[in-house]
Amino acid sequence: MNYETPLFFHVMQYGAQADRDVIDMVSGNPDWEPPQALRDGLSEYATAESDRFQYPPSDGLRPLRAEIAARRGVEMEQVIVTNGAGEANYLAMARALERGAGSEVILTDPVYPYYPGKTTMLGGTQRFVSTAANGHLDPADVREAASAETACIVVNTPNNPTGAVYPAETMAELVDIAETYDALLISDEVYDHFDLSGTFSSALSVPSDHRIVTNAFSKSLAITGFRVGYAIFPPDLIDNARSRHMLVNVAGSRPAQYAVLHALRETGPDYYARNRDLLADRVETFTAALEAADAEYTRPQGSFYVLARFENFPGTLENVERLIDEAGVAGMPGEAFGESRQQWLRFALVTPRLEAAADRLVAYFE
Amino acid sequence: MNYETPLFFHVMQYGAQADRDVIDMVSGNPDWEPPQALRDGLSEYATAESDRFQYPPSDGLRPLRAEIAARRGVEMEQVIVTNGAGEANYLAMARALERGAGSEVILTDPVYPYYPGKTTMLGGTQRFVSTAANGHLDPADVREAASAETACIVVNTPNNPTGAVYPAETMAELVDIAETYDALLISDEVYDHFDLSGTFSSALSVPSDHRIVTNAFSKSLAITGFRVGYAIFPPDLIDNARSRHMLVNVAGSRPAQYAVLHALRETGPDYYARNRDLLADRVETFTAALEAADAEYTRPQGSFYVLARFENFPGTLENVERLIDEAGVAGMPGEAFGESRQQWLRFALVTPRLEAAADRLVAYFE
Repeated sequence: MNYETPLFFHVMQYGAQADRDVIDMVSGNPDWEPPQALRDGLSEYATAESDRFQYPPSDGLRPLRAEIAARRGVEMEQVIVTNGAGEANYLAMARALERGAGSEVILTDPVYPYYPGKTTMLGGTQRFVSTAANGHLDPADVREAASAETACIVVNTPNNPTGAVYPAETMAELVDIAETYDALLISDEVYDHFDLSGTFSSALSVPSDHRIVTNAFSKSLAITGFRVGYAIFPPDLIDNARSRHMLVNVAGSRPAQYAVLHALRETGPDYYARNRDLLADRVETFTAALEAADAEYTRPQGSFYVLARFENFPGTLENVERLIDEAGVAGMPGEAFGESRQQWLRFALVTPRLEAAADRLVAYFE
Repeated sequence: MNYETPLFFHVMQYGAQADRDVIDMVSGNPDWEPPQALRDGLSEYATAESDRFQYPPSDGLRPLRAEIAARRGVEMEQVIVTNGAGEANYLAMARALERGAGSEVILTDPVYPYYPGKTTMLGGTQRFVSTAANGHLDPADVREAASAETACIVVNTPNNPTGAVYPAETMAELVDIAETYDALLISDEVYDHFDLSGTFSSALSVPSDHRIVTNAFSKSLAITGFRVGYAIFPPDLIDNARSRHMLVNVAGSRPAQYAVLHALRETGPDYYARNRDLLADRVETFTAALEAADAEYTRPQGSFYVLARFENFPGTLENVERLIDEAGVAGMPGEAFGESRQQWLRFALVTPRLEAAADRLVAYFE
């Protein structure tokens, strides 16, 4: 079995080994500071009594689960703290596929590459629904693809890689489709703090026992390496997911959970607003450069990414490597995200050298 | 699907909610201090540049993998750093079961309950081989149970719950059986620093491309809550395991990996020897009390556990709860570890109140 290992690591490695200075716009690692309270929490934990260094509850530190539940308006019993959104999506998709209610996973094209990889690993089959040029998903297309064979529909809003933020009506329709076919809607909302459009709508706003919401603190607290995320399950579906979590990971890492809890409690809305504003500025800078380079591009409503298409420069791995060697800018090949964006490249706006990258692209393509 | 959730959590909860003072001898959480260097590493990390807070390599921080490889005498490319031994065993068993070379998992009876749970979750079937009264495994019995249907043989040495430490000949025989039937030997060696017998022999000492060794720093550094472990694969088998690790967890938690690396580098052999000596003393104290209480018991050669059998007091969950309520000592029911130890209770020797617990048991049973 080959699980279609994402290309991220290959591209990052190629960029790191290049003979010249390369600006990394490959992965979605925030380049800004985590909240001071996160560092304080970790320092504090380092001197805690040694019994605090032992197993946390398998489903996460209770006060952290309580904090998440209060923020999301759900019961604490619905929350499992996971090893990042990666594990949260794995648990959610496994839960959908083991119900005996279908083995098809409806995904969008373009798609975040981990979802098809997880599908294969879990023994499911992918069914792709194309999104519009601006990245939006027409629920009618999803309804047409859905059937008794549908185990789940996996969406990501704000979206990686398109930057689309699905409106409330889309979320309501997706939940309705899941209910109609006894499937589950899995909504990965890891970029929820990076909605630049003001239109973000969580799947949690649609009451249903057919949807699972996944999320993480990786992006919102700028700590992709800490691996603290969560999944919110309908009460009837959580028990097996909790068992799977226990059998795979036993529990998540306690120092990271402790630091996140401390950061959540002590960090005000300013922190999140500041990073969102920074991202909005970068969208302006980068899309202006793409205009100057005569490229087609998507203006993100949210998330960290811009898709761009340069004339006679399809989004192949080969061209990504050429851009690294010849322009000193590393992006992701569009082909990594599915058939529909094979002509495109994805750039992550999480580098302090964004302006320099924009200048390099203009100079290269003009 | 029900994965036979281990009883640990139920018993711990019952003990915590009891109306009286209870000495916890349920779970394998070391009650001694982690090395000072572990705390120092975590403090140091808390003030690191923020790019160090982002994704580590999926298979673990390179210097940590290098340190593990050097200590275990393997190539760094064979090492995946995992979310504790829990994930390491999950990856190893999944790797064995997905090879298309059998779907049976040979386990010992008594058994560490997570192994049968993982087997079911991964779609395999358990085949149990009984061990001797002292916990030793006769390789001839394993050979008799093995067949073309065998995907893997999972052993744990030093053993939880029996305390047996398998001699070198057993390990060599087990590897040979795995090779004969194109199966994999999976050797979980998480208690390797707690060999009281001087006879521990790692499966790594038998060169083979049919064995996987799993381990963690949970016990040796007294940090069960940090979730840093590893699996050592034969070169030909590691790629799919690495993909699965990526698709399930993306990566492990970086603060924990950093602290472990620092601790490994700065902690001398005294630290490990001191904890082993403490454990040896506790074995003496506790087994003397069991003698006084006229109980049958196993004297562990290694690991943290003593199995004990009191007259007319079978190792049921009901009796464990009775012992909590009436004697103030919490152990694990033997039935949690398989059919062969249903008359027994397991006590973990990782409490500073071991003598008090011993006194309570003597008073209760005499």
